[in-house]
Amino acid sequence: MILNLETEFTFAVEQATDVLLQFEVARLASQRVETSETRINPAPTLTRVMAEAGIGERIWLPASGQVSVSYCASVGVERSAPPLVELASLAPHELPAEAVGYLLDSRYCPAEQFQALVETEFGTFSGGARIEAIRSWIASNFAYTPGSSGTETTAVDSFVARRGVCRDYTHVLICLARASAIPARYVSCYAPGVDPPDFHAVAEVFLADPSNSASGTWYLVDATDMADPGETAIIGVGRDAADVSFLTSFGHSNFGTLSVRVTKE
Amino acid sequence: MILNLETEFTFAVEQATDVLLQFEVARLASQRVETSETRINPAPTLTRVMAEAGIGERIWLPASGQVSVSYCASVGVERSAPPLVELASLAPHELPAEAVGYLLDSRYCPAEQFQALVETEFGTFSGGARIEAIRSWIASNFAYTPGSSGTETTAVDSFVARRGVCRDYTHVLICLARASAIPARYVSCYAPGVDPPDFHAVAEVFLADPSNSASGTWYLVDATDMADPGETAIIGVGRDAADVSFLTSFGHSNFGTLSVRVTKE
Amino acid sequence: MILNLETEFTFAVEQATDVLLQFEVARLASQRVETSETRINPAPTLTRVMAEAGIGERIWLPASGQVSVSYCASVGVERSAPPLVELASLAPHELPAEAVGYLLDSRYCPAEQFQALVETEFGTFSGGARIEAIRSWIASNFAYTPGSSGTETTAVDSFVARRGVCRDYTHVLICLARASAIPARYVSCYAPGVDPPDFHAVAEVFLADPSNSASGTWYLVDATDMADPGETAIIGVGRDAADVSFLTSFGHSNFGTLSVRVTKE
Amino acid sequence: MILNLETEFTFAVEQATDVLLQFEVARLASQRVETSETRINPAPTLTRVMAEAGIGERIWLPASGQVSVSYCASVGVERSAPPLVELASLAPHELPAEAVGYLLDSRYCPAEQFQALVETEFGTFSGGARIEAIRSWIASNFAYTPGSSGTETTAVDSFVARRGVCRDYTHVLICLARASAIPARYVSCYAPGVDPPDFHAVAEVFLADPSNSASGTWYLVDATDMADPGETAIIGVGRDAADVSFLTSFGHSNFGTLSVRVTKE
Repeated sequence: MILNLETEFTFAVEQATDVLLQFEVARLASQRVETSETRINPAPTLTRVMAEAGIGERIWLPASGQVSVSYCASVGVERSAPPLVELASLAPHELPAEAVGYLLDSRYCPAEQFQALVETEFGTFSGGARIEAIRSWIASNFAYTPGSSGTETTAVDSFVARRGVCRDYTHVLICLARASAIPARYVSCYAPGVDPPDFHAVAEVFLADPSNSASGTWYLVDATDMADPGETAIIGVGRDAADVSFLTSFGHSNFGTLSVRVTKE
Repeated sequence: MILNLETEFTFAVEQATDVLLQFEVARLASQRVETSETRINPAPTLTRVMAEAGIGERIWLPASGQVSVSYCASVGVERSAPPLVELASLAPHELPAEAVGYLLDSRYCPAEQFQALVETEFGTFSGGARIEAIRSWIASNFAYTPGSSGTETTAVDSFVARRGVCRDYTHVLICLARASAIPARYVSCYAPGVDPPDFHAVAEVFLADPSNSASGTWYLVDATDMADPGETAIIGVGRDAADVSFLTSFGHSNFGTLSVRVTKE
Repeated sequence: MILNLETEFTFAVEQATDVLLQFEVARLASQRVETSETRINPAPTLTRVMAEAGIGERIWLPASGQVSVSYCASVGVERSAPPLVELASLAPHELPAEAVGYLLDSRYCPAEQFQALVETEFGTFSGGARIEAIRSWIASNFAYTPGSSGTETTAVDSFVARRGVCRDYTHVLICLARASAIPARYVSCYAPGVDPPDFHAVAEVFLADPSNSASGTWYLVDATDMADPGETAIIGVGRDAADVSFLTSFGHSNFGTLSVRVTKE
Repeated sequence: MILNLETEFTFAVEQATDVLLQFEVARLASQRVETSETRINPAPTLTRVMAEAGIGERIWLPASGQVSVSYCASVGVERSAPPLVELASLAPHELPAEAVGYLLDSRYCPAEQFQALVETEFGTFSGGARIEAIRSWIASNFAYTPGSSGTETTAVDSFVARRGVCRDYTHVLICLARASAIPARYVSCYAPGVDPPDFHAVAEVFLADPSNSASGTWYLVDATDMADPGETAIIGVGRDAADVSFLTSFGHSNFGTLSVRVTKE
């Protein structure tokens, strides 16, 4: 399946500073970037470094004054998505070293305090069936409400408010997964069904392979039900939204406008 | 310099569960583990995995009921520590990929919101001189007060309270460094001058090499003034305390007793 | 029913300061203080002022160094407690002026963010039946766990953690009542069934009189199920625990020991 | 001095509900409401109740669907404002009962944790001179930044961020006053110099009368420097912004537009 992406955004910094951007689709076996063009104005010298977990790139941009960014790409996505309920979890001690960090508390996902709750509410399920129960519960009980959350909103706030946007849905799902001893991480991405159109966020959980219960891999899960794994173009991954913001500034910046357009071919 | 360590702690879990431990000294060029013995009772089958940034190991322990852990080691530490004030910082775009994540917000270190403050309070300093100014300010303005903070206390809380323990001092230093666009991470360690004796925590900041300003490395900084870098035995590193807790349980656990003894030979 | 109370506690202040105490049983129509003796050592000149809502007294104590406080009283409690489920709520605009403030957010009870949740979870109940449903849900889903919360713990934290002590149970109940547009306040008190023995806390909610649905009064509710309204000796009321702490110090104080003993005659 | 006020705002509620409004100027000896007109559309039956501390009124409005509110008034303000630095504070035990509650922690003003900080930073000042030092420090170190804070932002957040709007400046001042054992409360008001025009917020602190140090009264303080006490028309007072919101809804509401215009005659 081919996704065509067009993104534009603008911002201004008060003082010359290096700004960190992450908005380009990662090059992965499951998603082939056919064409891609990034334009930044004024045209700077960009520095690219590998992003978290080696997925995608971060761009350092020496910014001063007004900056506008545009990005178009055409991406062929081929990603199989077995039903979550058929997947087992690994015992914690079977996890690969690089998955263990995704069990721990992070900026927006203070997961540990949810341990008793997850046992009470979802204790009858395990593995992928528990993730599916959590996803389904969030999807049914939360109201997708643009503007109802901000950069300080944590999963605890969202859990109580029962509203938020994709970022918040994903943070709650990550917390409940980690509190269940299942590694979970945050995925920034593009997807065609997002309404209103915007960057999207979903979770990835680490579960056992269907064919080999001693090894595992990451599976996409969208608590908003807006993005099918087979139609999701991953930008990057991290502990939570703090790791994959499309714009991180070290100094005060004023955000301008953003448009995101994703279509299926 | 040789450090001799003895640690003992006990805990109990309500239900059989995998518990994550991290208390052994990491094997590094700057610290040679001469002898080391870990005893866990009841004696389980342990699984060891590489910890964050490849420094030290995490131990998975299948726990049930009462558990006691003891660890002794003899460690030769050889670590040069140039004066911070002589070290420059790298521009963000010069940082290696693996240092960039340590600029971002984490569980206990929501650094971004300190950006204006750090500019106002420490804006006349840069690089290592800024870190030294921050360290010195914390050391002078905070009261070391065991029992005044808990597992939920963030760097924002500590910054306001002006009291805490090594964990809290370190979280504040990390926030102020990251808000200054200097990567900073949390180091759990042993050190002889810690009073009352306990596991210790210090920060590491990423600054330029004295001889080559285009490359950098991590330098230890202790805002409590209790641990000299040359007398510090590193256990592990992470974004903050959430990544290197000596005991992380997935299920309710009751902590028993802890003793830590560190002497210089 | 007669309750006999004995309380003793000690503390020390670093510097001479006025300390605010509130531990004596309030004189109310529903509870007659038969005998009462307060001893403070060293013996200071106390200043008593009326406490929140005119219920009970606060004591200002000029403290310096070590202080010990002892209090004994014999209290005759006569308090009828109609079943909550039989009580209606008043419409907000029917509430007396002095009840309106108890609908609003306070230090530990940020109630507004629970509005959607309370509608989803308890929307089929109204008035006293909703309070009873909330009380029963908390009693069934929370684990009474001394030591699991601290002075910074809010109702949001407790709601997620599903554990705490009487203070935390009460804060959650208050939030869910206020979010339901039912005034709710915090009551510090003594009660014989509290285990382990300690000061106790319950909520009061403002509901319609059984006989006259246009006027209302405050009804005691204990989410821990440890205190029967007819066996509860009220000390004071407030927005939440911040208003009725038994000890509030303006300057650093070190708490010593506390014993509370409550028996029925 | 005569202030002419015009306010208009609109909002919509999802379901019929009682909404609490507080936007009219209070009738006080220091401010004489000459003319006043409140129009609400659709025209409902309003219920007015006395607001906190008996200052001003709260309005209950049975709302359903779209609501628009307009208010005009002409107010003669006569308020003397002695220089803060000339005013002493009362010892805590000299405070009237109704001032004591304003020493305690509230929703947005968790003052207790600032006690050590206020001693370190402002310990050389006492009474009104301390309040003036605090006010001046906030005015110099904070950037007035509309949009930088939200309904969840506390004084701790604002203290660290060093930016905010009048609400946030006032919360920080209140915390630092209470931590100094000086009662402080939140005042919603109108003032002509507010830029951009909006409802305004300032603090009131309880200090000794210049002529009689054993009794005291409330004095207005504006950390934003935008409102002179002699040109401030008080709407209401409370522990913090939670008590005097111009619009509190018990159910989800969508805010529309707001305009505020204040001119001097």
